[in-house]
Parts: sequence; C-alpha cells; structure tokens
Amino acid sequence: MTRSEIESGFTQLQANICEALEAIDGVATFSKENWEREQGGGGLTRVIQDGGVFEKGGVNFSAVNGPLPDTMKKYLQVEDNTFFATGVSIVIHPRNPHVPIIHMNVRYFEMESGRYWFGGGIDLTPIYVVEELAQGFHAKLKQTCDQFDASYYPEFKKWADDYFFIKHRNETRGVGGIFFDRLSGNTPEEKKKLHEFVLAVGNTFVPVYQTIVKAGRDKEYTDAEKSWQSVRRGRYVEFNLVYDKGTRFGLDTGGRTESILMSLPPIANWHYNLEPTPGSPEGHTTSLLRKGIDWALPEKG
Amino acid sequence: MTRSEIESGFTQLQANICEALEAIDGVATFSKENWEREQGGGGLTRVIQDGGVFEKGGVNFSAVNGPLPDTMKKYLQVEDNTFFATGVSIVIHPRNPHVPIIHMNVRYFEMESGRYWFGGGIDLTPIYVVEELAQGFHAKLKQTCDQFDASYYPEFKKWADDYFFIKHRNETRGVGGIFFDRLSGNTPEEKKKLHEFVLAVGNTFVPVYQTIVKAGRDKEYTDAEKSWQSVRRGRYVEFNLVYDKGTRFGLDTGGRTESILMSLPPIANWHYNLEPTPGSPEGHTTSLLRKGIDWALPEKG
Repeated sequence: MTRSEIESGFTQLQANICEALEAIDGVATFSKENWEREQGGGGLTRVIQDGGVFEKGGVNFSAVNGPLPDTMKKYLQVEDNTFFATGVSIVIHPRNPHVPIIHMNVRYFEMESGRYWFGGGIDLTPIYVVEELAQGFHAKLKQTCDQFDASYYPEFKKWADDYFFIKHRNETRGVGGIFFDRLSGNTPEEKKKLHEFVLAVGNTFVPVYQTIVKAGRDKEYTDAEKSWQSVRRGRYVEFNLVYDKGTRFGLDTGGRTESILMSLPPIANWHYNLEPTPGSPEGHTTSLLRKGIDWALPEKG
Repeated sequence: MTRSEIESGFTQLQANICEALEAIDGVATFSKENWEREQGGGGLTRVIQDGGVFEKGGVNFSAVNGPLPDTMKKYLQVEDNTFFATGVSIVIHPRNPHVPIIHMNVRYFEMESGRYWFGGGIDLTPIYVVEELAQGFHAKLKQTCDQFDASYYPEFKKWADDYFFIKHRNETRGVGGIFFDRLSGNTPEEKKKLHEFVLAVGNTFVPVYQTIVKAGRDKEYTDAEKSWQSVRRGRYVEFNLVYDKGTRFGLDTGGRTESILMSLPPIANWHYNLEPTPGSPEGHTTSLLRKGIDWALPEKG
C-alpha cells in the first residue's frame, strides 16, 4: 500500500459518495473547489447547498504533507519531522428535521519514519431519535466491522460514545456509531487489510444513510420541529468547535478554514435555558443522548 | 477593599445595567436565575429574550470560590490551593442588524496567598460598521481610561485588538474596544483605585451603548441584512467557542453551562464560502475588521 494507492482509494470514495448523494437529493449538485496548502499538498472540497433533501452538506478530500508542527510532535509524542495525511470527511445537514445529521470520516496518517495509522468513524445525530433507525444504523456498522474483526464493533462503538460526547451538556452528540484511531500493523498484509477496512467503512456510508433519508425525507414537519432542529444544530456547533480534534487541529495548523468549517450547519439557534418537557418527542430524544445504549441489539429470534 | 466590597460593587453594577437595558428595550424584562456552584459560591444569571430591541441578551454575575484546579495552577503558574473570583459579564444580541452586538466584562480574581488582579473589557461588534459610531465608542472608552491613567487606553485598545481576533478568519471580531487583565497593585490605595477603574468601565457600558442603540434601533432592514447578521453571529460563536478564555475556562471547570453560553446568539448561520462583494456594505464592514485602526481619532480642530 503506497501513499498514492491509499490517496486514490479516498479520491474515488469521495467521487462515489458525492454522486450517490446528488442522486438522493435530486435537486442540487456538489460544487468543487480545489485548494492547495502552502506547506504541501491540498484537497478538493465539495459542498451541496439548498438541495431538495440537503440544506447543507460537505464532502472534503485532502492529501497534505510537510513539516510536522511542534505542537503535533508533542501531542503525538514523536520525533518525526515530516508527515503525510489523507482522508475524506463528510457532514450532511438535511432540511427536514426528521432526517438526521450524519458525519463520516476516514483517514490515513504517516510519518517520516514510516510509522502510520488509519482512523475514522461514522456517527448519526437525529433531531428526533427513531429507535428502529438507530438500531438499523448500528447493526449495519457492526456488520461491516465484523467482516474484519469481531472485536472492532464493541470497541469502536464505545470509543464513539466517549468521543462524540458534549461534556458541558452531559449528553452525547447523537446516537453514536463507531470511532477508531491509530490502527496500525506490522506487515504489508496487515496494512492492506486496514486500508480495506477503512474503505469498507466509507462504502457503508451511502447505503446506511440512504435508508435513513428515505424513512424521513417526506415526513411533514412543523415550525416548532424546525426550531428544535436549530437547537440541536447548535449543540453540533458546540461539539465541533469545542471538542472535535480534527477541527481544532485544522484551525490551529492553518488549514483551509472554509473546508474545515463546512461541517457547521445552516441556521443554528441558542435559546437560553431550554428544557424539553419530559415525555415530549424532544424530551424523549434528549433522554436517549447518553453513552452505553446497546443499539445493535441481537435480532429477536 | 474586601472581597465582599468588591462583590457588592459588581452586584450593584449588574442591577443597574439590567434596569437601564430594560428601559432601553421597552418590551421585555430580564429573568433571574440564582445558581450555586457545587465547590463553592454561585451567581445570578439574568437573561432578556424576544424584546423590542434585544433579541437575546445576558448579564451574568458570579462570585465563586474553592480549590484552584490543577489545570488553572499550571496555566497561572502559581502554587495557591484556593481562589475567589467575582465578576459581571454581558453579551447583547439586538434584533436589528443596524444595532451592534456588545460585550462587557469586569472581574476580580484572588488567590489563597492574597495575590489578586482585576481584569475586564468592552468590545463592539457591528454587523455593519458605522465609522462615526465606532469612533464615538472608542472616544468614550478613552475618556474613562484617561481619568485613571493615560497609558491605559492605548495599551488596552491594542490588547483588545489582539484578544478579540479570530485567527482562522484573519479578522477581528468587530471594531474592538479595550481589554485588560492582571491589573494589580502593592498598596491598599492602589487596589481601591483599580476597583474604581473597573467599576468606571462597567458604568461606561450603559451610556456608550445607549447612544449606539439609539442610532440604529429604528432603521429599516431587509432580509438580506438580517441574513448577514446571522453570518456575523456565526463568527461570534466561532470566537467564543474556539478562543474566548472565559468561555473555555468555564466549560473546562464545570461552570454552569447555560450561564456561560448565554453569550451565544439566537439564529446564527454558516453559509459555505461566502465572500461579500468588495464595495458592498458587507464588504466595507469586512474591510474594517482588522487590527490597528486608530478609532479614537483626535477631535478635528
């Protein structure tokens, strides 16, 4: 697995996903901005706005290289002077509050010494949690993981619970999913296998989201539901700007701001001290924004 | 100057400001939430929403004490085990895009050893910069500063330029103002003087903002102008969640989240890759969001 093989796997993934999302949307198409990074490499940012289904969505590809910043050396506890990183990152904000926000990321990081790791994840943020859809989502992620290693899903599901957690709100960002980082191996075969795994995660994105979009896209919604969506999007902003490592690392190291912050929603809202009524659909959703829910239930037999 | 004298000065300041803002608004009144902090102390959060002038605004008072967290010891480079902190913090988001967002904060921090300092600031974030108003704003801040020390305004104005800077956007949050921290003295007289200074800054808030509100509150505005306001509010969110030390310290140390994040706006928007047309009112404003503008011009004679 050379850098360029990994990179071209990700390029292809971006193209496939954009094509599929355009077909789902039916109205808008993705813009294309090629950008270059001063210190090395660049990317292709693709954004869809004001679509039939998607109010705003971004699918970003990047492949960057250059000197490893000191802050990063310290954080990673390595002595390497240069790095290479490539990945695909997606956040989709649908218009209809009955269609969840989704995020997916797959990435590869390599240092001067040849040390490398893969990372990634998918997580789902429903405005209104529908248990069956959350279960189906997790079941499909588990299926993908199980094809590679039976330990992956339980480990990466817990990792997502811990990672996508808004500490100051004491709530998870949504119903979670999987998150993993620093997957590495000692042989070329292991590296190939890990590359296949992250591509498999990437390829799970379209079918899994398609089902979820289909279930909600034609549901009617009220102004109050749209307003609740703005509040939940506000929490999404809080997570991304306060906690998300990719966002903060990107901003700290002078990445392309518009590509990094394409994850931020159209129209978010902060209403002081909003407390959903217990038992209301909003209260029900809030009650499910916690760690440790076993969404990938064994099938009832 | 005892802790309780300083604290009651701030309590009074909060009450006065809320009363004045209610009179300016004419429609809505401030709610009151008393809250306690588990490890010691508490506060009074006052929020106005959906008013005649103010879409959302918060005036927070707090007086907290307890063990100094390790992260804070490290950051402050001190060995003290306990602290006391009191302050008033304001952010106002008006409805009309021709009325700027304003922020004001005054604070006092004291450690076990008796070491103390005062800090604070005021800064203005116009959605559309009106030069005369920005000049008047700075002139009044300079006037307040000059009553205490001629070096204050130039120093604190530059400090505000540097502090209220959104690095990843390469722009200032607005037209700045003053910012200062760690003002301390060696004698009781010096401490008294510093306390008077921060109260003078606090007392400058109402007259200075009143003039600015009056100038814009009855101007008509379009949907496009309201939409630009949402974009600028988005930048405000970015500053507060990514850079603002008070916000991050509060969230990190388990402060009351709703009181800390009352600074976040109603309805913010992130539109991908929005570039105002040069020469448009939006472009004109963007061109003035930079450091080093000498707003407090000497009067033309």
